[in-house]
Amino acid sequence: MGDCDVVDMGFETLHDGQTIQFPPAILAQLGNDTDKATVCFYGHVDVQPAKKEDGWKTDPYTLTENNGNLYGRGATDNKGPVLAWIHAIDTYMALKKDIPVNLKFIIEGVEETGSPGLVKLLKEHEKFFSDVDYIVISDNVWLSRKPALTYGTRGNAYFFVEVESGKKDLHSGTFGGIIHESMRDMVYLLASLVDTSGRILIPGIYDDVAPLTEEENKLYNSIDFDMEEHKNNTEVNTFLYNTKEEILQHMWRYPSLSIHGIEGGFSGVGTKTVIPSKVIGKFSIRQVPNMQIPVVEKLVRKHLEDVFAKLNSPNRLKVSLEIGAMPWVAKVDDPQYEAAKRAIRKVFGIEPDLIRDGSTIPLARTFQDLTKKKVMMLPIGGADDGEHSQNEKISRSNYIQGTKIFASFFLELSKLHEDLQTKSNLKNAKIAQLIES
Amino acid sequence: MGDCDVVDMGFETLHDGQTIQFPPAILAQLGNDTDKATVCFYGHVDVQPAKKEDGWKTDPYTLTENNGNLYGRGATDNKGPVLAWIHAIDTYMALKKDIPVNLKFIIEGVEETGSPGLVKLLKEHEKFFSDVDYIVISDNVWLSRKPALTYGTRGNAYFFVEVESGKKDLHSGTFGGIIHESMRDMVYLLASLVDTSGRILIPGIYDDVAPLTEEENKLYNSIDFDMEEHKNNTEVNTFLYNTKEEILQHMWRYPSLSIHGIEGGFSGVGTKTVIPSKVIGKFSIRQVPNMQIPVVEKLVRKHLEDVFAKLNSPNRLKVSLEIGAMPWVAKVDDPQYEAAKRAIRKVFGIEPDLIRDGSTIPLARTFQDLTKKKVMMLPIGGADDGEHSQNEKISRSNYIQGTKIFASFFLELSKLHEDLQTKSNLKNAKIAQLIES
Repeated sequence: MGDCDVVDMGFETLHDGQTIQFPPAILAQLGNDTDKATVCFYGHVDVQPAKKEDGWKTDPYTLTENNGNLYGRGATDNKGPVLAWIHAIDTYMALKKDIPVNLKFIIEGVEETGSPGLVKLLKEHEKFFSDVDYIVISDNVWLSRKPALTYGTRGNAYFFVEVESGKKDLHSGTFGGIIHESMRDMVYLLASLVDTSGRILIPGIYDDVAPLTEEENKLYNSIDFDMEEHKNNTEVNTFLYNTKEEILQHMWRYPSLSIHGIEGGFSGVGTKTVIPSKVIGKFSIRQVPNMQIPVVEKLVRKHLEDVFAKLNSPNRLKVSLEIGAMPWVAKVDDPQYEAAKRAIRKVFGIEPDLIRDGSTIPLARTFQDLTKKKVMMLPIGGADDGEHSQNEKISRSNYIQGTKIFASFFLELSKLHEDLQTKSNLKNAKIAQLIES
Repeated sequence: MGDCDVVDMGFETLHDGQTIQFPPAILAQLGNDTDKATVCFYGHVDVQPAKKEDGWKTDPYTLTENNGNLYGRGATDNKGPVLAWIHAIDTYMALKKDIPVNLKFIIEGVEETGSPGLVKLLKEHEKFFSDVDYIVISDNVWLSRKPALTYGTRGNAYFFVEVESGKKDLHSGTFGGIIHESMRDMVYLLASLVDTSGRILIPGIYDDVAPLTEEENKLYNSIDFDMEEHKNNTEVNTFLYNTKEEILQHMWRYPSLSIHGIEGGFSGVGTKTVIPSKVIGKFSIRQVPNMQIPVVEKLVRKHLEDVFAKLNSPNRLKVSLEIGAMPWVAKVDDPQYEAAKRAIRKVFGIEPDLIRDGSTIPLARTFQDLTKKKVMMLPIGGADDGEHSQNEKISRSNYIQGTKIFASFFLELSKLHEDLQTKSNLKNAKIAQLIES
């Protein structure tokens, strides 16, 4: 039917010196009619780690339907949307209808670790993207029960801070009281990062955050966002802020810092009387326009080194940036945003919200920077899908309506593209006329 | 040959409500000559967790000899000493020699989690211990290359501090910036426990520590302790103290606090962009005479609740004491200490050091309190054995010389016991004479 290539995504050198090959990506194509618009769909089939004992009610790797929901790791992030897109195309084919756009696909398997091979792929396969008009990513979720289009995401600077006291773990009975313990240094370092109001304590970190203009501020008032529903989705009692506008801004346009955990300490169930020798604290900063990764890295490193110096510890400190993914903002007057709005109107009978996403799709920014194409994020998952969490799901309804949105989007985009072509042809004809006259 | 009973050690109710049966203990007896002293040997055959990937050079569960050392989990803590004791008895039998003492054994399998079934066992099997004169535990190591006898151990109050922000883990991109994260509260709580000089910051915690008398202080001067060798054994560059006396006192007679790790956060290799919902910090205090567990528990709970209150966090805090094991101190003029000194003199030609151990043998205290018998700790493992650590070992030499010490100890103890009996009989005869006269 179409063309499909399996392409190399490079390899990673692990901390122990071993190298592992990344799973290859798929580049595929269906249709090459030069009169039609060409849409490239990006999706990923790798997932976050999941174990039954983390608190899953069903086996995370067996898709299980219950009460109108489809449960399983990757159900919404991102295998479900990938299948829905394919399903939309399949429907055109089953009905023996002409697909109104040319389709391209890039499906990868290393998104959850920051798509390390993508830049190389985009550079090496420049030709594949040269005739693409629009790029669509469906790797996030709605904000509420209302459909949404996403025009911005935050970046992610993921840090490791390592403290090593010696070569081996020690018995806390035999050696406790005479050792500079690495876990003590670690909790001091991690406690210096963020205050109880959620404010990041790294000096200078807010300097490059784009100021909030009056115009942008107005945008948040009109968003349909139910704080109580959002609390129910998160299963958290209290947020850091009390107003809708503050919540949306702190999810979307202000940076945040989360401490994820510590590797190397005793993390098992029960008790272990160990003094860990080497511990690695893991935290990340969701950075926003106009923060720059190298500046963030420099500020974080300086701050941790300053705090560590005050501890007077003989232990060894190492700070490293493990993921450095940029934030992304799109222009919402791109034709594909208009086409998606029309598609959603057709399927749902309502206007979608124009929203941002607090999480990171490094691809959106990477695609925009490297291919210079227009990128849109068209989510189909629900706000309560629980991506990266236990009991991740996509609702049966979102999956089916999402498939319809995709199918309808192809049609609306082709019409808008045709109009644009006509306008462009008319304009060119007028220019030619003027030149000739 | 002897009698051997397998006895129930009770069960544990896990956090999820499940119950698991503890492995049973073994009570055994060899010889019941009322003219002989009766020595009961305590040992355990359970071990600390160990995985090859923790940094073991050999499979932790396959005893591997290399360069005069026997590597394997439990080699020194405590399977090696248990076997050496049996080996000593076996040697008497192989030589068809009369064993000069009656022997009893208690071997259990839950020591590493604080011997939770032991109190019940000692109460239910009171008769078994009624004719025991001396109890010997060989579950610690020497302080240096010189043989040692141990007359004191620190206790262990092991705490869990749990913070729960909600019912499920959340994506740090989608929710970072609006949530009171449990890991933030956790690092604040853990950072409040101990300062950079190793001093515990829990108010009142030092109030019950026995004051250091002039007499006790002198004791530390005479101990053979090589700080540089100890540094080499720990593979740590710098200790918290600079003098031998301070180091020994802070290992043995002052309390210490170690942070072991955090359960529930992301502790794997690599990156995971998660906001953990429930995290459990694990730390323990090695307490010393005259600190009392209920007092320690009350102070820790109050301190953590006070610190948490200042965080103004809506999250849920829970503090629990998971292990509460008392410290122990023995009288060094017990006959079995004298017998052990003579045995060591015979095998090594030198006087042993009289030392304490910073780690906890809850049994020593429990046996002393419940059986009212004289308890001695007679270690055979070397200072660099690395109990609870990666690459735990016992040297071949220590294993063989230790076996000789045990065999020689039986003989010396029987002689001293005979002298004591004679003295006691003479005394009784004199008293009878006086009464009759």
